[in-house]
Amino acid sequence: MLYKITSPTLIVNEKTCLNNIRGMADKARASRVIFRPHFKTHQSLQVADWFRDQGVDRITVSSAEMAMKFAKAGWNDITIAFPANIRETDTYNGLAENLRLNLLTDSPEATEALVSKLNTDTGIFIEIDTGYGRSGVHYANEEMIRKIVHIIDHARKLSFKGFLTHSGNTYSATNTGQIKDIYNNTIAELRSLKDKYINTHPAIIISVGDTPSCSLIDDLSGADEIRPGNFVYYDLMQHYLGSCKLSDIAVSVACPVTGIYPDRNEIVIYGGAVHLSKEFLEQDGRFFGLVINYTDDGQTSPVPDTRLISISQEHGIIRTSPEFLKTIRYGDLLGILPIHSCLTANLLKERIIIQ
Amino acid sequence: MLYKITSPTLIVNEKTCLNNIRGMADKARASRVIFRPHFKTHQSLQVADWFRDQGVDRITVSSAEMAMKFAKAGWNDITIAFPANIRETDTYNGLAENLRLNLLTDSPEATEALVSKLNTDTGIFIEIDTGYGRSGVHYANEEMIRKIVHIIDHARKLSFKGFLTHSGNTYSATNTGQIKDIYNNTIAELRSLKDKYINTHPAIIISVGDTPSCSLIDDLSGADEIRPGNFVYYDLMQHYLGSCKLSDIAVSVACPVTGIYPDRNEIVIYGGAVHLSKEFLEQDGRFFGLVINYTDDGQTSPVPDTRLISISQEHGIIRTSPEFLKTIRYGDLLGILPIHSCLTANLLKERIIIQ
Repeated sequence: MLYKITSPTLIVNEKTCLNNIRGMADKARASRVIFRPHFKTHQSLQVADWFRDQGVDRITVSSAEMAMKFAKAGWNDITIAFPANIRETDTYNGLAENLRLNLLTDSPEATEALVSKLNTDTGIFIEIDTGYGRSGVHYANEEMIRKIVHIIDHARKLSFKGFLTHSGNTYSATNTGQIKDIYNNTIAELRSLKDKYINTHPAIIISVGDTPSCSLIDDLSGADEIRPGNFVYYDLMQHYLGSCKLSDIAVSVACPVTGIYPDRNEIVIYGGAVHLSKEFLEQDGRFFGLVINYTDDGQTSPVPDTRLISISQEHGIIRTSPEFLKTIRYGDLLGILPIHSCLTANLLKERIIIQ
Repeated sequence: MLYKITSPTLIVNEKTCLNNIRGMADKARASRVIFRPHFKTHQSLQVADWFRDQGVDRITVSSAEMAMKFAKAGWNDITIAFPANIRETDTYNGLAENLRLNLLTDSPEATEALVSKLNTDTGIFIEIDTGYGRSGVHYANEEMIRKIVHIIDHARKLSFKGFLTHSGNTYSATNTGQIKDIYNNTIAELRSLKDKYINTHPAIIISVGDTPSCSLIDDLSGADEIRPGNFVYYDLMQHYLGSCKLSDIAVSVACPVTGIYPDRNEIVIYGGAVHLSKEFLEQDGRFFGLVINYTDDGQTSPVPDTRLISISQEHGIIRTSPEFLKTIRYGDLLGILPIHSCLTANLLKERIIIQ
């Protein structure tokens, strides 16, 4: 298939991807938690089928648009893990007519708006901020949480599903111990909230979801539901956080070589910000990806002393060793391991090859 | 139209955009240079028509895919300003059958490959590196330039069109004087190359193109052709470089408010990296955009003390003043002036409203 590639294309390594899916599904089963994977990373109906093969029938998405896409493909239990957007209530109503839909709220005002606009049974999670500081009610704000529960309890079409968080602060951790601490802290805070409401609302659950925690914690039984997404592909950011081995990264972007510059040990590829995103890491300087070669049975480890050091809209500049540069010809394909696979896969969602 | 918006949408301010187009077209006419605008920024057939209204009939694009899109819409003189990709020669041949196509080369090897694979008349520019260090033959590498010209001259289907550069190093300038110096230097280097070949190739031209230079230099007559693209929309990066006024920025992204956090003076919008890109600026800290309000006749200036300080895949966090925060309600639309309009417009190319 690779010989047909003319422009930057996302290559999904099926074997690695299936391993990642199986590994997380097994861990969820062993921990006896609901596995509701986030599909925002792959956004692919084919990869979604691989999850179904592992018994997954509940999913998470990050937008109403994504919910519609997977609803059309037959997925019928969907949480939109994004603060409910009161401009999209018509779409929510349409979805909820045909599937079990859960939305998130983190304020009395937004909840009141949902009460007035939703006309179909919809599950509501209260999003809790356990330290990330993005969205969610601060876990200690008991008064606001009580108000929101009260509003949900008095709404005919809404049902209170429990407490949900995304501990995105794990992405700022500088070692895996910190990630485990964040996870344990998150679980403790959510459980204490659940304890307060479980008698009056016996069906509520706590739902957590970041890939670093779900990858590094062996026993996830402190949660009731997990929603990791990135682990399906992993990426260099996860690798540097300690969430995965380099060999767990299941995607690369195949990029044609369009320039070779021996005087500066650089190669220019067709592959830029509109394919990879501008996400970067800083490790002895800024870089936008590592480089692999494709082989008959998959791909090599990253080429030593070789990094994607700069990208513009369509160009990427690889700095490498004279030895590697000598092996490269115009029109060769090089693979780029992405920094952040969610953004890369979003950009290339219509240009994927399963390998 | 704004009331209909449910998710992040690119708002193009028609009046500002037309002013930008007219301004550059007038300058090109006054300088007696060919105006071959780059369409990679807007990628919009409607905006393309506004250029046609200004007499533009030659365009620049950055990929074969974009060339096909505009070819279908009737554009028939196209330069693909990206190093020719020998995996796409079938597409180049298809394009060249129906329109005047120009490609770029910067090596004897790539040029030889084009000779063997192109079977339809195609113009070839030699891309010159005048200091940016991305692609192009270094301007002083006379031997390589001579070799490439020789190969083109002996190819039946290729014709030598001249020397082309993109002085992307203007984007690293710290003041407008540096941008002007880069421009003058570029023109001097390209003219000296042209002087060497004009007797044997009387039709060759020199073509330059970055928006900072084309915006800041009043008399562009040193060039034969200009190819700026970003100026059609401009953005905050251009503003901080000194290329445009804030009021020249012709695009914003309309984002619904989905979270209000008075305790930390922050607002969460539906609008993240998949809408805006992760491009940022550093000015008293990192930020991903400035915030405007929409009004009946357009938009306000940026809201004081208010910036988009963080983005994840779909969320954006705005930090603001208590005064502004008090005016905001769930479901309001806020406009984000993008850091880099090319990447933002690429992400939202199917979700545009002309205002």
